[in-house]
Amino acid sequence: MVVDKAVKRLKEIDREVLLLSHILSVLSWDQEVLPSKGAEERGAQVGLLERQIHTLVTSDELGEIIATLEGVQLGEVETAMVRHAKRDWERERRLDGEFVQLFSETTAKAYPAWVKARQEDDFKAFAPTLEMIVTLLQEKAEALGHSGEPYDPLLDLYEEGTTTAEVESLFSEMGLFLKEILEQVGEREVDDTFLYGKYPQESQDFFIREVLTNMGFDWERGLLHTAVHPATSTLGAHDIRITTRYEELSVASPLFSAIHEGGHALYEMAASQGVCRGTTLGSGVSLGFHESQSRLWENMIGRSGSFWDYYFPQFKELFPLQLANVDEGQFLAAINRVKATPIRVDADEVTYGLHIIARFELEKALLKGDLKVKDLSGAWAEKMEKLLNIKVKSDRLGVLQDVHWSMGVFGYFPTYALGNLYGAQISAIMANEIDLDYHLKRGELTPIREWLEAKILKYGALYQPKELLNKVTGSPLRSSHFKEYLTKKYLEI
Amino acid sequence: MVVDKAVKRLKEIDREVLLLSHILSVLSWDQEVLPSKGAEERGAQVGLLERQIHTLVTSDELGEIIATLEGVQLGEVETAMVRHAKRDWERERRLDGEFVQLFSETTAKAYPAWVKARQEDDFKAFAPTLEMIVTLLQEKAEALGHSGEPYDPLLDLYEEGTTTAEVESLFSEMGLFLKEILEQVGEREVDDTFLYGKYPQESQDFFIREVLTNMGFDWERGLLHTAVHPATSTLGAHDIRITTRYEELSVASPLFSAIHEGGHALYEMAASQGVCRGTTLGSGVSLGFHESQSRLWENMIGRSGSFWDYYFPQFKELFPLQLANVDEGQFLAAINRVKATPIRVDADEVTYGLHIIARFELEKALLKGDLKVKDLSGAWAEKMEKLLNIKVKSDRLGVLQDVHWSMGVFGYFPTYALGNLYGAQISAIMANEIDLDYHLKRGELTPIREWLEAKILKYGALYQPKELLNKVTGSPLRSSHFKEYLTKKYLEI
Repeated sequence: MVVDKAVKRLKEIDREVLLLSHILSVLSWDQEVLPSKGAEERGAQVGLLERQIHTLVTSDELGEIIATLEGVQLGEVETAMVRHAKRDWERERRLDGEFVQLFSETTAKAYPAWVKARQEDDFKAFAPTLEMIVTLLQEKAEALGHSGEPYDPLLDLYEEGTTTAEVESLFSEMGLFLKEILEQVGEREVDDTFLYGKYPQESQDFFIREVLTNMGFDWERGLLHTAVHPATSTLGAHDIRITTRYEELSVASPLFSAIHEGGHALYEMAASQGVCRGTTLGSGVSLGFHESQSRLWENMIGRSGSFWDYYFPQFKELFPLQLANVDEGQFLAAINRVKATPIRVDADEVTYGLHIIARFELEKALLKGDLKVKDLSGAWAEKMEKLLNIKVKSDRLGVLQDVHWSMGVFGYFPTYALGNLYGAQISAIMANEIDLDYHLKRGELTPIREWLEAKILKYGALYQPKELLNKVTGSPLRSSHFKEYLTKKYLEI
Repeated sequence: MVVDKAVKRLKEIDREVLLLSHILSVLSWDQEVLPSKGAEERGAQVGLLERQIHTLVTSDELGEIIATLEGVQLGEVETAMVRHAKRDWERERRLDGEFVQLFSETTAKAYPAWVKARQEDDFKAFAPTLEMIVTLLQEKAEALGHSGEPYDPLLDLYEEGTTTAEVESLFSEMGLFLKEILEQVGEREVDDTFLYGKYPQESQDFFIREVLTNMGFDWERGLLHTAVHPATSTLGAHDIRITTRYEELSVASPLFSAIHEGGHALYEMAASQGVCRGTTLGSGVSLGFHESQSRLWENMIGRSGSFWDYYFPQFKELFPLQLANVDEGQFLAAINRVKATPIRVDADEVTYGLHIIARFELEKALLKGDLKVKDLSGAWAEKMEKLLNIKVKSDRLGVLQDVHWSMGVFGYFPTYALGNLYGAQISAIMANEIDLDYHLKRGELTPIREWLEAKILKYGALYQPKELLNKVTGSPLRSSHFKEYLTKKYLEI
C-alpha cells in the first residue's frame, strides 16, 4: 500500500513536470513573434515555471518516494521512472538556489551580448561575459561532482553514462579518418551552383511536405513552419512542431533541414506514444540518440542515391527550368559536396565531425583552466587550421558563430558527432534486416520508420543510452561503422 | 510588521496569478495553430494552470492576509488589491471543487457540440447540452448568492456592481430609441456594394497599421495578426496582441475590427503601465468599460465624418480603381449604413443594442426557468421579429450564432451594449474638453488617446466601474448620451 501510494504520487508529480515542460515549450515557440518589449516578462513567466519544476523534482516528498521505491520490484516503466527521478533529484539538489539564479541571470544577459558581439565581429567585447560563464561552469562541474574529469558531469547532462574518456577515444579515431577522407575527396571539383538558383518557395514547401508525409510525419500531431532557426519542439504529446528556413539559401538547405528535423520529430512522435507514454520518459533517450535519428534521415537516407532514384524525377518536374541541364548524378554530387568551410552548420557530413572535435577540445581546455578565454580566438584559429586546413578570417565566422557557449552549455557539442556514430552503427544493423536500396528506390520509407520505431523510438528513455545501443546493435558505440559508411559513400563510388 | 509582511505576500501572490494568467493567454493564442490531436493535452495544460490560480486565490493564507489587511490604512493601490482579493476569495470559495470540475467538463464538451450543431443548423442536437449548462448556471447563481435576482451574481462577474434592475432600466430606454431610429433610418437607400470589391490585402494591412500607429498602438509592445476571430489578448504587460480577419468580407470589416481591437489594446497598454502596473489590477476595470473604448474608437471616431475628412484621400489613393466613382459622402454613408440583419457581429451601431436586449431577456428567462431550452428557438424568433422586425430563417443564423452560451457564459452580452452607453457618456464629456472635429480633420488622434489615458485607462481596476464613471463624467450611467449621439449622427444630418 505504501508502495502503491508512492507510485501513484510519483506518476502525478511526473505528469505535472511533463505538462509544465510542454507549457515551457509553448512559451519558447511563441518567442518567434514576441514583441520586443515583451521579452522581460516572458523571462519571468519562464522563470516561474522552471522554479515550479525545480521545486517538484527536488521536493522532500519526492525524496521519500524515491527512498520508498528504490530496490522494490516494480514494472519496467516504473523502475525507469524511479531511476530518472533519483538522478534528477540528486543532481538538482547539488546545485543551490543562489547558484542556479546567478547562472540563469548570467546566461540571460550573455545571449544579447553574444548577438551584439557576433554582429560587430568583436570577440573581445564578449570575452568578459564568457569568462564569467566558464567560471560558473567550473563551479557547476564541482558541485555536480566527478572523479578527476570536470567535463564528465556536464557531458552526462546530455549523454547519460558516456564519459569524456570514451568520447576522446572515439573522436581520436574519428578525427583521423575524417581528415583522411577530406584530403582525398576535398580536391574533387563539384559544381553545385545550380542549387542556388531561383526556386519558388511554394514548390519547395510542397516537395518537403511530400517527403515528410512519406517519412510518416503525422500532420494531426504536428506541423511545419518557417523560422529563423530550424528546430524541433515538443509542445505536447500530440503537438510536435518542426521548422525550416528558406532565406538566402540553396534549394538543398531547407529540404535537408526539414528532413533532419523530421527525424527528430518522428522520434518524439513515437516515443510519446510508446511504452513510456504519458510520462517524462516518453521522449528521446539522449541528445546523441536524438541526433542519430535526424542525421540518419538527413544524410544516410535523404542524401543517398537510392532515395533520389525515386525522388529526382518528381523534383525535376517541380523545377524544370532550374534543373534543365542537371542529371541525377550531378544533383547527387552537388548535395554531397565535401568542402571545408568555416561554419559548422554549413558543414557536410565529412567535415562536420571535425568542427565538433575542435569545440570539444576547446571546451575541455577552458574548463580545466588550461586555456584562457582571452586566448580562445587564437586557439580557435589553430584548431581550424590543424583540423580543416582553413584560415579563420573573422571571429564572426569563427569563435562567435555558435550560440551554445552564451547559454552556458558545455558538453552538448559532442552529442552532434556522437549522433553520426550512433546513426551509422544503427543503420548498419538495419541494413542486415531491411533491403534499404530496394525500398528507397521505390520511395518506400515506411519500413525504415517502422524498424526504427520498433527497435529504438518506442522505448523512449526506458533504457540508458548504452543499454539501448547494445540491445539494438549488440555492441558498444564504435567509430568504425561511420568510417565504413563514409568510405563506401565517398571513396568507393 | 505583520501588516508589512501581509502586503508583501499579497503582492507576491498577485504577481504569480498575473504571470499564470498571462501564460494562459499564450496557450490560448497558440490555439490557432495547434495540431488537431494536440487539443486534449492542451486542455490539461490549461487545467493545470487554472487550478494553480484557483489554489492561489482561495488559499487559507490569502484569507489570513485579507483579514489582516482589511480596514488597515494602506496606499490606494494596496487597498484596491485587498478589495479585489477579498471579492475573488469569497466568490471562488463559494464554488466547490466538484462543481467547478463539472462546469468545466460540461462546457469543454459543449463547444464542439455547438460547432457541430451550428454547422448542421440543428438546434435540437445542441439543446440537451444547453439544458445542462442552464441548470449548472442556476446552481452557480445560487452558490454565488443573491437577493432574489439570480442573474445579478452572473452579471457581476463581468460588470462589477451593476445590477440586473439597472440594466433593465437602461435597456428599456435604449430599446425604445433604437427602434425609433431604426424605423426612421432603416428605410434609407444606401449603396455599399463598392465596399465588397477586390481590395488587395496588403494595401488594407498598410492602411490599418497607419491608423493603429496614429492611435498610439505601440508596436514594441504588441502586434497585429490575422485570425479566425478578431480579438485582443494580453500575453504580458508589454505583449498585447490584436487580430483581424480578411476573408469574404467588405473592405470596411477588417479595418473597423482592427480599430475596435486597437481600442481594447490601448486600454491594456495604458492600464498595464498605469498606477496599478505590475499587478492584476493593471487591466480594464470591467468588460463594459473595455467595450466603451473599442466602440468609441471604432464607431464614434473611426466612422465619423471628421476622421474620414483626413483619411479618405489617402484611402482613395490606395484603392483608386475600387473607389473611382465614390466620394467621401458616399463612402461615409456606406460604412454607416443602418439595416437590421440576423447576425449580431454584422450589426451596425443602431441595431446592435437590439440584438443584445434579445439575448439579455432570453438569458434572464432561461435562468429563472420561465423559458425552457426546448422553446428557445421559437422565443428567439419572436424577439427578432419584435425588436428588429426580421424573420429568422434558420437556427444557424439565429439562436446558434454565438459561442457564449456553449461556454457557460450568461451575463456577458449586456456588457457589449453597456459599452456603447459608457462610450457615449465618456465622449460627451471629452467633447467638452477637446475639439474632436478640429483634431480629427487634421488626423490628430493623440489628444484623444491622451485624454482617455489620463481620465480612465491609466487607473486600470483601481476604482469600481461606477466610481470611475462618476469620477470621469460626474454622473451615473445614463442612456441619454447614446441617444443624443445617435440622433445627431443619423437623424440630424
